[in-house]
Amino acid sequence: MKINVAVIGASGYSGLDLVRLLSQHPQVKLTAVTSERYAQQPLDRLFPTLLPRLNILLEPLQPEKIVRKADFIFIALPHKEAMEVMPFFMQSKKRVVDLSADFRFKDRRLYEKWYQKHSAPELLASAVYGLPELNRAKIKAARLVANPGCYPTSALIPLLPLVQEGLIAPGGIIVDSKSGVSGAGRSANVTSLFCEVSESFKAYSVSNHRHQPEIEEQLSLAARKPLGITFVPHLVPMNRGILSTIYADLKKPLSLDAVRAVFKKYYGKEKFVRIFPEGMLPQTGWVRGSNYCDVGFVLAGKKKLIIISAIDNLVKGAAGQAIQNMNIMLGFKEDTALEQIPIYP
Amino acid sequence: MKINVAVIGASGYSGLDLVRLLSQHPQVKLTAVTSERYAQQPLDRLFPTLLPRLNILLEPLQPEKIVRKADFIFIALPHKEAMEVMPFFMQSKKRVVDLSADFRFKDRRLYEKWYQKHSAPELLASAVYGLPELNRAKIKAARLVANPGCYPTSALIPLLPLVQEGLIAPGGIIVDSKSGVSGAGRSANVTSLFCEVSESFKAYSVSNHRHQPEIEEQLSLAARKPLGITFVPHLVPMNRGILSTIYADLKKPLSLDAVRAVFKKYYGKEKFVRIFPEGMLPQTGWVRGSNYCDVGFVLAGKKKLIIISAIDNLVKGAAGQAIQNMNIMLGFKEDTALEQIPIYP
Amino acid sequence: MKINVAVIGASGYSGLDLVRLLSQHPQVKLTAVTSERYAQQPLDRLFPTLLPRLNILLEPLQPEKIVRKADFIFIALPHKEAMEVMPFFMQSKKRVVDLSADFRFKDRRLYEKWYQKHSAPELLASAVYGLPELNRAKIKAARLVANPGCYPTSALIPLLPLVQEGLIAPGGIIVDSKSGVSGAGRSANVTSLFCEVSESFKAYSVSNHRHQPEIEEQLSLAARKPLGITFVPHLVPMNRGILSTIYADLKKPLSLDAVRAVFKKYYGKEKFVRIFPEGMLPQTGWVRGSNYCDVGFVLAGKKKLIIISAIDNLVKGAAGQAIQNMNIMLGFKEDTALEQIPIYP
Amino acid sequence: MKINVAVIGASGYSGLDLVRLLSQHPQVKLTAVTSERYAQQPLDRLFPTLLPRLNILLEPLQPEKIVRKADFIFIALPHKEAMEVMPFFMQSKKRVVDLSADFRFKDRRLYEKWYQKHSAPELLASAVYGLPELNRAKIKAARLVANPGCYPTSALIPLLPLVQEGLIAPGGIIVDSKSGVSGAGRSANVTSLFCEVSESFKAYSVSNHRHQPEIEEQLSLAARKPLGITFVPHLVPMNRGILSTIYADLKKPLSLDAVRAVFKKYYGKEKFVRIFPEGMLPQTGWVRGSNYCDVGFVLAGKKKLIIISAIDNLVKGAAGQAIQNMNIMLGFKEDTALEQIPIYP
Repeated sequence: MKINVAVIGASGYSGLDLVRLLSQHPQVKLTAVTSERYAQQPLDRLFPTLLPRLNILLEPLQPEKIVRKADFIFIALPHKEAMEVMPFFMQSKKRVVDLSADFRFKDRRLYEKWYQKHSAPELLASAVYGLPELNRAKIKAARLVANPGCYPTSALIPLLPLVQEGLIAPGGIIVDSKSGVSGAGRSANVTSLFCEVSESFKAYSVSNHRHQPEIEEQLSLAARKPLGITFVPHLVPMNRGILSTIYADLKKPLSLDAVRAVFKKYYGKEKFVRIFPEGMLPQTGWVRGSNYCDVGFVLAGKKKLIIISAIDNLVKGAAGQAIQNMNIMLGFKEDTALEQIPIYP
Repeated sequence: MKINVAVIGASGYSGLDLVRLLSQHPQVKLTAVTSERYAQQPLDRLFPTLLPRLNILLEPLQPEKIVRKADFIFIALPHKEAMEVMPFFMQSKKRVVDLSADFRFKDRRLYEKWYQKHSAPELLASAVYGLPELNRAKIKAARLVANPGCYPTSALIPLLPLVQEGLIAPGGIIVDSKSGVSGAGRSANVTSLFCEVSESFKAYSVSNHRHQPEIEEQLSLAARKPLGITFVPHLVPMNRGILSTIYADLKKPLSLDAVRAVFKKYYGKEKFVRIFPEGMLPQTGWVRGSNYCDVGFVLAGKKKLIIISAIDNLVKGAAGQAIQNMNIMLGFKEDTALEQIPIYP
Repeated sequence: MKINVAVIGASGYSGLDLVRLLSQHPQVKLTAVTSERYAQQPLDRLFPTLLPRLNILLEPLQPEKIVRKADFIFIALPHKEAMEVMPFFMQSKKRVVDLSADFRFKDRRLYEKWYQKHSAPELLASAVYGLPELNRAKIKAARLVANPGCYPTSALIPLLPLVQEGLIAPGGIIVDSKSGVSGAGRSANVTSLFCEVSESFKAYSVSNHRHQPEIEEQLSLAARKPLGITFVPHLVPMNRGILSTIYADLKKPLSLDAVRAVFKKYYGKEKFVRIFPEGMLPQTGWVRGSNYCDVGFVLAGKKKLIIISAIDNLVKGAAGQAIQNMNIMLGFKEDTALEQIPIYP
Repeated sequence: MKINVAVIGASGYSGLDLVRLLSQHPQVKLTAVTSERYAQQPLDRLFPTLLPRLNILLEPLQPEKIVRKADFIFIALPHKEAMEVMPFFMQSKKRVVDLSADFRFKDRRLYEKWYQKHSAPELLASAVYGLPELNRAKIKAARLVANPGCYPTSALIPLLPLVQEGLIAPGGIIVDSKSGVSGAGRSANVTSLFCEVSESFKAYSVSNHRHQPEIEEQLSLAARKPLGITFVPHLVPMNRGILSTIYADLKKPLSLDAVRAVFKKYYGKEKFVRIFPEGMLPQTGWVRGSNYCDVGFVLAGKKKLIIISAIDNLVKGAAGQAIQNMNIMLGFKEDTALEQIPIYP
């Protein structure tokens, strides 16, 4: 018995990775995929990687049609567009994983400060922030899961346990993140052209990227008090991957073993978080195509902790984590369709 | 009931891709992996992509040990080294897929002209050239399968049917191939350094690459007469993938549909060969990480056929095809462990 | 005493490379740069590479203004747009190097078959095809020079001498070209996005690229009879560079030395054509940023000649050659502003 | 009248860039180039980019020969090898720019802690740290200039003015640097292979890179008290370029204009330091092939300053700065042979 699944917004890179992974999921039947720009085109003509397994047409988004065709819905639309269709899907008693930012914030004002006016604020309270390793029980019961941003996933997995245990001194967390270009999406922008990116490296949205308040809200919830960070994202000339270099001041000196013990407590049984042994640090190439979040760390002085985390931004940072959330919500084995070993090189 | 499998030469890129794919094979148990350089190291320390699934040490190659540990053997050694251990494995009644060039030639003199003296020529006659789509029955019965070279795979899949049907005029076949850098292996050579390859493009071994006689022997066998080609390989600044642009003169004018009919006759039921519809041509990115060989074609004038084929050189061009051969030899479902959809981007 | 120069269409990659090179030209003063999209922006804000040397605003193209400001004009507009402004520049007695395709063809019907109706056909007869090594005398006297396409430059420099000498058998020339992505320009197209190009390789416009008739017309003029070719361009994941692999059948067997003698006759004194010694073949990385066209060759059989040529598509394939043409037209030393040694890596 | 110049260690990437730039220097005659590995080979066969301008053979390093051939010497050897030949060059009254680390430290113990025992410590006192923008007067008079490391150049140019002015709070400086692969040199190491680097991103030598004490010693000298930093270098899949993201706590709140005023005071007349206007931040692609150090900055909170700097690691980070030092030492115009506009894309 398979569940009928729709992917809303299937023509972007997250949408494609959702389709790629879902079509290898034994308990899923993909019954609808939408795209305004490519409506009526066969999905496998737009993305020949899918040839010839998927015989399905892209359709324009008509929510009433979707709810007739599917019982579980992934939304991979840009923010704003997601919240416009969400109330209807909720009224239709569907369960949804939303990959946009629209339902990630508990604090509506925070969302409205960084994005725009929220058109469905009544859903914010019940939406669950979909970081399975930290929030599994709530996700299981949720009807609307807000899939975390890619940078936040890479930052929160290593930081949340340390913050929750009260080990980090206030005020000094720096998250210096580096992302592959697929994070910018599949839109035709000059800044994402090959020649603008290849053989170059840059920072962007320095200290004003929208993922900063997302990270801060989750850390503040864990700390049970306001906690700010400094966040600088960078663009790497590669397709996939995020590496975050995180600098944190410890409240009091800790040994590497003590830090490791904290990670082990939180992630010892987690399949998708790999805490690296001493002397090894993550590389994005080592998680490519997989749902892993790799974490390594080093002490620089008695109280300065440097953590390196790596994810595939399209998998653990988007489509893979979304499917992990679906698996939890539907009671499937959590790693179904997510068992791929990273592809290297 | 699983079969015990050894990978001889597991520290190169083909070896790694063998291990990656085999460790996702439900009927395989990996019992031995060898490497002289990294002997005694845990395999997943050398290749952290494998963390933490594979708890196995690399060992130096001792054939007597291997035959006690494994019933099926993949050899991913350089040529010359493979033929030195092969007789022992054969005497030990093991079945072997050899990824080196040592047993690919029927004509010993051809091998010795392009490589070196052959130390186990008595095995050449019974060795089977492991191109499953053309040679499936023989592979099923073989004890020693010689896995085709990466360039030959990309050239033979599109050319063999046309040659076998007698459609190609003699003398004019040109294979202009372009390969990603993993084809050069994981050895520390200056010419494979990032800075020597990135932002550059070159031809190499022009008209004297060892894969040329391999392609020619197979085409000649299909044509039942000597058939030579012009072959120029090139190096592309990317990790994986081979695209071959093949120019062939037709004996008499053929329509695109007539060419398509030939391909359909040979590959209509083949899972791993995708014949592209008119107007679409293969790209290496569309097969990345998969066992597909994509084929498209165009007519340039009435009798000039241009064929474009694309494979992932480490999968269909090496490890994937080797496992496909094993699946056939052992009666497993042919696509077991090879069902991955290409990863894009 | 400097000449006042305008660059029409300065916001693309060819325009930028024109500005880069011209601003290092001791006899040139850049007095006007145009761009519709970026009008009124300082050029060095659009391209910070130019900071702080160039204090000039982009302006919308108003031909009457341009002719007041400049005596020599480079046009780096898309085809069609160039021919619309050309009559006015000619009436204004300006000298022009046009980087578009609009005035490259002698045969108006050929142009109209592959592009569109020509709006200034009366200028075709006097326009000179700007390949300096073959056409220097005419360029010197020309008022309108049509700068060759990037692919044609890479194909014609090696082929023209052999065709002119009558050494090539009819019917069999194949030009298999590979270009970096800057050849596609700076327009925001999905197909030029980093993630669509990186880690992939493809052929495109197989046997129907507009540079094919351009090459054919020039070869036919040299051969004094119609001469067709097979032309397949490919896209390489790199910024700059074209490598063409050219297959030609010799009328009668020639030694490598005999071929070399022909090249020496034509290019022995040419500064920008480097004929490689035996055993060395060009790579695009070895011409990066320079105005060189490198040529190497190999015999594959007695009558099959394989030539490899390499250029930087933005320099010898566009801006550099345009400036070389200007230098000839104005009586400057031909390599002024073009003396850069290639940058490697 | 030209000066005779030798490049010791000409077969690496820094050596090649020295030769590339020097051969365009009107007051320099290159009279000797050395390489043990490629001795007796023509330099332009090893590096065909140099064809055909440089007709010079690589020779093994024999210091007595060098001092007869050259009056000015660049040493681009690995550390340890440089200090072994330096005393002889000094006794021979030659002037030297050394690109190795051997003479960068004032504090011999620091050198010996991070590198090895120093064999020519008597030269440390008179050696001048070759950062022209900060040390021009001393460089002018020096006989031995120690060319700064690539990372230190990118960190010190933005940091030294702020530290010298006493604006930075102690203890909190973080330098998160990202380098292209040419920084690892041209040695055949597995970790520098294309396939190990491409499509991946990693940190390395976290908090124990040898450039950290070099940065710290210079900052401490400027601060007139010990000043430590946290330093994490990363590897970017590109050939050239370093971008450093620097986090510093201000002693007291400063406006962007106040910070700009400090940079203007130090660099207002410097040709090679470009302080970016508000709203623009450096990218490595914008300095490619040039001797620029670009600097931009942002405030994140009242007292948190984020500085982004970018250099070409082989030019301003090595060969270009070395030639800038030579120009100063010999009284040439400081930007001779260094006037190139960056190549983009």
